Amino acid sequence: KTNIDCLTDSRMLRLPGLIDVHVHLREPGATHKEDFASGTAAALAGGVTMVGVMPNTHPAFIDQETFLLGRKLARLGARCDYALYLGAGPDNAEKLAEIGSQAMGLKMYLNDTFTTLRMDDVTLWKKHFEQWPRHLPLVAHAEGRTTAAVLFLARIINRPIHICHVARREEIEVIRMAKESGMQVTCEVAPHHLFLTAKDLEVIGQGRGQVKPPLCTEDDQKALWDNMDIIDCFATDHAPHSVQEKNSSKPPPGFPGLETMLPLLLTAVNDGKLTIEDIVARLYTNPRHIFSLPEQPNTYIEVDMDQTWVIPQAMTHTKSKWTPFAGRKVKGAVKRVVLRGEVAYIDGQVLVPAGFGQDVRTKPDGVPFTVPAPLSVQVPQQSTLYPSSAPTSAPP
Amino acid sequence: KTNIDCLTDSRMLRLPGLIDVHVHLREPGATHKEDFASGTAAALAGGVTMVGVMPNTHPAFIDQETFLLGRKLARLGARCDYALYLGAGPDNAEKLAEIGSQAMGLKMYLNDTFTTLRMDDVTLWKKHFEQWPRHLPLVAHAEGRTTAAVLFLARIINRPIHICHVARREEIEVIRMAKESGMQVTCEVAPHHLFLTAKDLEVIGQGRGQVKPPLCTEDDQKALWDNMDIIDCFATDHAPHSVQEKNSSKPPPGFPGLETMLPLLLTAVNDGKLTIEDIVARLYTNPRHIFSLPEQPNTYIEVDMDQTWVIPQAMTHTKSKWTPFAGRKVKGAVKRVVLRGEVAYIDGQVLVPAGFGQDVRTKPDGVPFTVPAPLSVQVPQQSTLYPSSAPTSAPP
Ligand SMILES: [Zn+2]
Ligand SMILES: [Zn+2]
Ligand SMILES: [Zn+2]
Ligand SMILES: [Zn+2]
Ligand SMILES: [Zn+2]
Ligand SMILES: [Zn+2]
Ligand SMILES: [Zn+2]
Ligand SMILES: [Zn+2]
Repeated sequence: KTNIDCLTDSRMLRLPGLIDVHVHLREPGATHKEDFASGTAAALAGGVTMVGVMPNTHPAFIDQETFLLGRKLARLGARCDYALYLGAGPDNAEKLAEIGSQAMGLKMYLNDTFTTLRMDDVTLWKKHFEQWPRHLPLVAHAEGRTTAAVLFLARIINRPIHICHVARREEIEVIRMAKESGMQVTCEVAPHHLFLTAKDLEVIGQGRGQVKPPLCTEDDQKALWDNMDIIDCFATDHAPHSVQEKNSSKPPPGFPGLETMLPLLLTAVNDGKLTIEDIVARLYTNPRHIFSLPEQPNTYIEVDMDQTWVIPQAMTHTKSKWTPFAGRKVKGAVKRVVLRGEVAYIDGQVLVPAGFGQDVRTKPDGVPFTVPAPLSVQVPQQSTLYPSSAPTSAPP
Repeated sequence: KTNIDCLTDSRMLRLPGLIDVHVHLREPGATHKEDFASGTAAALAGGVTMVGVMPNTHPAFIDQETFLLGRKLARLGARCDYALYLGAGPDNAEKLAEIGSQAMGLKMYLNDTFTTLRMDDVTLWKKHFEQWPRHLPLVAHAEGRTTAAVLFLARIINRPIHICHVARREEIEVIRMAKESGMQVTCEVAPHHLFLTAKDLEVIGQGRGQVKPPLCTEDDQKALWDNMDIIDCFATDHAPHSVQEKNSSKPPPGFPGLETMLPLLLTAVNDGKLTIEDIVARLYTNPRHIFSLPEQPNTYIEVDMDQTWVIPQAMTHTKSKWTPFAGRKVKGAVKRVVLRGEVAYIDGQVLVPAGFGQDVRTKPDGVPFTVPAPLSVQVPQQSTLYPSSAPTSAPP
């Protein structure tokens, strides 16, 4: 058995099924943008076999009733495995603790992004910090100085926290200070902040290019790459909208990202800017560790490291028929995805039906998982066949 | 010798000369609003014998040259003792350390109040935290979540910090968390946040009532009173503007406050909401301790606890001919101020000339003081003749 396909002289590589801890699948409430079936098809096409689904739907996942609705729709629609986040709101801290172990984690929106879940006041944050069980993941959208503000709370309350989509020098440098002081803080970075800056708005267009956090300066981008050793996860923040919406006079913020993330990262590997181990650590080992996610048995993906292609105007499986990366030449492609023994994706085709995906916080019989003890941080063997130049950065 | 004047049957009380660590005297650059001579006359009339002068003048005190200019003008104009702050800007962190011991402290504007000294980015704050000598005072305008953000830095860098004009529940509760965790954080509250709320805007007028931080809710005000035990200082944030400016369509934020602070606080004593010891701790003992300020020999003030009067449309000595407290009935008045052996104020008259005030960071011969070791916290004997019901809250 070999990972090298000698007939085509392309380097085929087997990696674990990737975990994207941050996606918006728009169901319920905006299924013209995406739904569980389309979004998880996009995930599989991107080599992602497990997703953390954000709660800012309509209705938002903010209590038992809405959470059960979301999980029912996910059970019917999802093709890959998943867990749903609960959303922190101004008055639901007490309600969430008892269903917390069934969720991916608690999502706190601490900037002005999503009205229903908006929490302007640190005293509201504190309630969630105190009520949400300490052993369950707590993740925060916290831009600019808000990163420092929420880390103050995390420090004083001594609470692990995960910071979403870090985009600015200010944010990553504050996170570095926190990590160096011994705090249990982890973070994720989105591909569009690694591979695009505000300069790309000229090509993408100001309206389509709207995203939160925004595309930032080249200095901000450089800070992300310079601090790669403390970036724990990559996550798409897949936020699909229709082309019509993105072209409107009030374009909603967000990019689709599930089908383009891995090709972009593999291109960076081919360019010598990352190693395969960097990718596996940030899209498999660390997400599993930070979010206490179970192993997916008989699950892996195969990528062609040599396939060169140009990202088209729109990707195939998401309903969001545009991409900010259109026209970009990449080297690296997802060829095959095997999920729990089934070929879920091969050469452009998603083969598993809606409903194939499992809620990783609940066993099929409906009994919640016991959250496993944290894993030791280790790059899985599958990727070690691939020669790498730089050592994998160690997660905290 | 007695403090009780039996002829008039009013209770006269001798207190130490008060220290207001936060005033704006507008010189240089806006002497139509205030200048050192008028602002320090207002101070004396308010029982204040020492002021900390904010650096957001025109030019601002941001380097050796502007700082020397400010000190020259203060030497010529001030009637009471003083020290000037230096202002933190986006690119002056390195320049300030060497002149730091001659300043009241370093003022950091961390919200959107003053353009020249505006610092949007936590990486800029960090430079000042690292460069400014650790034993010298560092004070921050940090509203809302910015309080938590700057306290994150203070915690990680292990740097004492003083938070200006705390106005909201969110802010005082975050400061309580910091104090309870053992951090060296101190704070001040302005009289207008103790005695006014947004409801008073109906009377004051929306334009005149503009101030930063704004007049807040009754719940915010209650939080200040409920947390009186952790409020280290009272400070006016005396911010004079002309009536014309305050009545304009773009009213600048700020209230005059030097001549009304003590009468308002004495009224609270008469109402049983504060003790004289509370006032002395927050306007003498703690300011001296936090800012390492020298004793003023032969300096004291005499107040009449029983004089009842109504705050007029404008106070006498400030150039700012209006007050947000106009029409308020108060009980308590400053009768006499003795500064370094001279009667500086008596019954409405300021008797000391411009230039009488001394820079408390520099001896008269120009040699900078050695910053004294922190004082033990003790209410001075002068006030103990006055019967008090509640114990003085202990500063940290
Ligand atoms: Zn070959
Ligand atoms: Zn977000
Ligand atoms: Zn998101
Ligand atoms: Zn880990
Ligand atoms: Zn008497
Ligand atoms: Zn201020
Ligand atoms: Zn001020
Ligand atoms: Zn003290």
